[in-house]
Amino acid sequence: MILAIDVGGTKMAAGLIARDGSVAASGRATTPQGADAETLWRTLADLVEPLSGEVEGVGVGCGGPMIWPDGEVSPLNIPGWRRFPLRARLTARFPGVPVRLHNDAACLAVAEHWRGAGQGSQAMLGMVVSTGVGGGLILNGRLVDGRTGNAGHIGHVVVEPERGSRCGCGGTGCLETVASGPALVTWALAHGWTPHPAPGDNRGRAGYREDRRVTARVLAADARDGNPVALRAMERAGRGLGVAIASATHLCDLDLVTIGGGLAQAGEPLFWPLEEALRQHARMGFARRVKVVPAALGQEAGLVGAAALLLAGDAYWGRTDA
Amino acid sequence: MILAIDVGGTKMAAGLIARDGSVAASGRATTPQGADAETLWRTLADLVEPLSGEVEGVGVGCGGPMIWPDGEVSPLNIPGWRRFPLRARLTARFPGVPVRLHNDAACLAVAEHWRGAGQGSQAMLGMVVSTGVGGGLILNGRLVDGRTGNAGHIGHVVVEPERGSRCGCGGTGCLETVASGPALVTWALAHGWTPHPAPGDNRGRAGYREDRRVTARVLAADARDGNPVALRAMERAGRGLGVAIASATHLCDLDLVTIGGGLAQAGEPLFWPLEEALRQHARMGFARRVKVVPAALGQEAGLVGAAALLLAGDAYWGRTDA
Repeated sequence: MILAIDVGGTKMAAGLIARDGSVAASGRATTPQGADAETLWRTLADLVEPLSGEVEGVGVGCGGPMIWPDGEVSPLNIPGWRRFPLRARLTARFPGVPVRLHNDAACLAVAEHWRGAGQGSQAMLGMVVSTGVGGGLILNGRLVDGRTGNAGHIGHVVVEPERGSRCGCGGTGCLETVASGPALVTWALAHGWTPHPAPGDNRGRAGYREDRRVTARVLAADARDGNPVALRAMERAGRGLGVAIASATHLCDLDLVTIGGGLAQAGEPLFWPLEEALRQHARMGFARRVKVVPAALGQEAGLVGAAALLLAGDAYWGRTDA
Repeated sequence: MILAIDVGGTKMAAGLIARDGSVAASGRATTPQGADAETLWRTLADLVEPLSGEVEGVGVGCGGPMIWPDGEVSPLNIPGWRRFPLRARLTARFPGVPVRLHNDAACLAVAEHWRGAGQGSQAMLGMVVSTGVGGGLILNGRLVDGRTGNAGHIGHVVVEPERGSRCGCGGTGCLETVASGPALVTWALAHGWTPHPAPGDNRGRAGYREDRRVTARVLAADARDGNPVALRAMERAGRGLGVAIASATHLCDLDLVTIGGGLAQAGEPLFWPLEEALRQHARMGFARRVKVVPAALGQEAGLVGAAALLLAGDAYWGRTDA
């Protein structure tokens, strides 16, 4: 069995994954907010304890950035870990078994390629569109690491070169500035959108404004209901996604793009303009063949991808050091 | 010895390449303009004839598009070859030895990685900026083919998503619409540039307008002399290149970009705005490390890269069929 771990800003998950990718057991814990490094580590250690019987290897997906493949992690949304030696700590806890760690978005792409919507793809980009926009690249049937393990940052492909907004990365006009959930909500509120509470929801408008994750979902629902500002926000995001996917397709000769994450649920208001922009920009024979599909795996994709770092030969782990 | 062949719209070149990448013998011929498929083939066959003694393998770089790895070629600028079975014809001419064929831009990237400015790079984009803008991607130390052998099309990364010009590929706003030699010249002429003949050149302005390859070089010279329209044209191209390189760096975690082709000679007027735009958009730690350098190999790079398809183990040829 492989012990798989998925570390995120809101939750940590762990599971035992069999050779065929099935999840034999799993658990999750809330990531303690504002905690120091050791408190965070104890939360994780307690979570994996009941799963530690017959572990043959440990695979980890973690938010970036990180020093890779060494596995010193500094997740943007876990301030208590800065250059935390997560891989070394897990190696000390599980001596004698390999520990492999990669970016969480890379693990999600790996999961889709190994057991999800990307099976058999020679050249795939697995995307996550959520509070951020990330991804993983699988080319010639293998996970691309890049020089420092950071390949797949589709969220920072530039889609508004000259008049784009400032991005969290320090640049301007990145895809993430038009297509992430918070970016969509900020744009819609600035253009007069009033969130429309769902029936039975009693928080009112102020409550929505404070909870950015919920409001992106509300925005998507309003777009499906025909709200014109919500539709324009989704159209802007969809066009940005289509342009970035066209560029990535030309550069990497992709045959498939999978899209997961919360906004992948937005449906036609997002995917129609995405397809329109993609087909407008990707015109050469090889590029017209690219398909964009929803991710097939659900909640456990992060664990499945982390386990695949060990279970899939060297397809997703080309380093010889672990 | 490897017989290397480089097929382009203006010339064909062939050479015998030793295991260390040195060129033992070579020859070139003018590509017959407007010729039919068999005339083109005879030109090539005559060119390789004196080099056909002790050939252990044949490597070919050819203008795209092509059916790959089968090697049926339809070079845009050689109208007489449409789905011409170049690889099959060479296999018939050299029975019993492997014949490998790839896009010419991929071969130039391979040459720089194998023996030029890209040696040791884990994640490199080798670019050609000339009458077109092309490239080849080398990730995890290996040439990326993509689904159909077309990876590396950096010239069709979108840098002007909304108001861009129509591109030869059918899309709009591609890098090639702002950074290729002809695009630069068209833009400069439309904005009032008058080509400034070099001393001793007696063709006058009309002659320059007709010869697009020369005028891009003249434009570069005028920019270095401080002509304001020429400088703006170079700045626009340089910024486009910088934006596209930033996007490619984020997507593929590149450590190096090499730039060859005629416009790589343009110097500061092109490279200064390129660096400025790149540094403005590529701000994350891993992306700031990317270096942009001129290609190191000269005229024979195409032959060296074609030979490397066979001489470098499976680094640049992952297929098992030849």
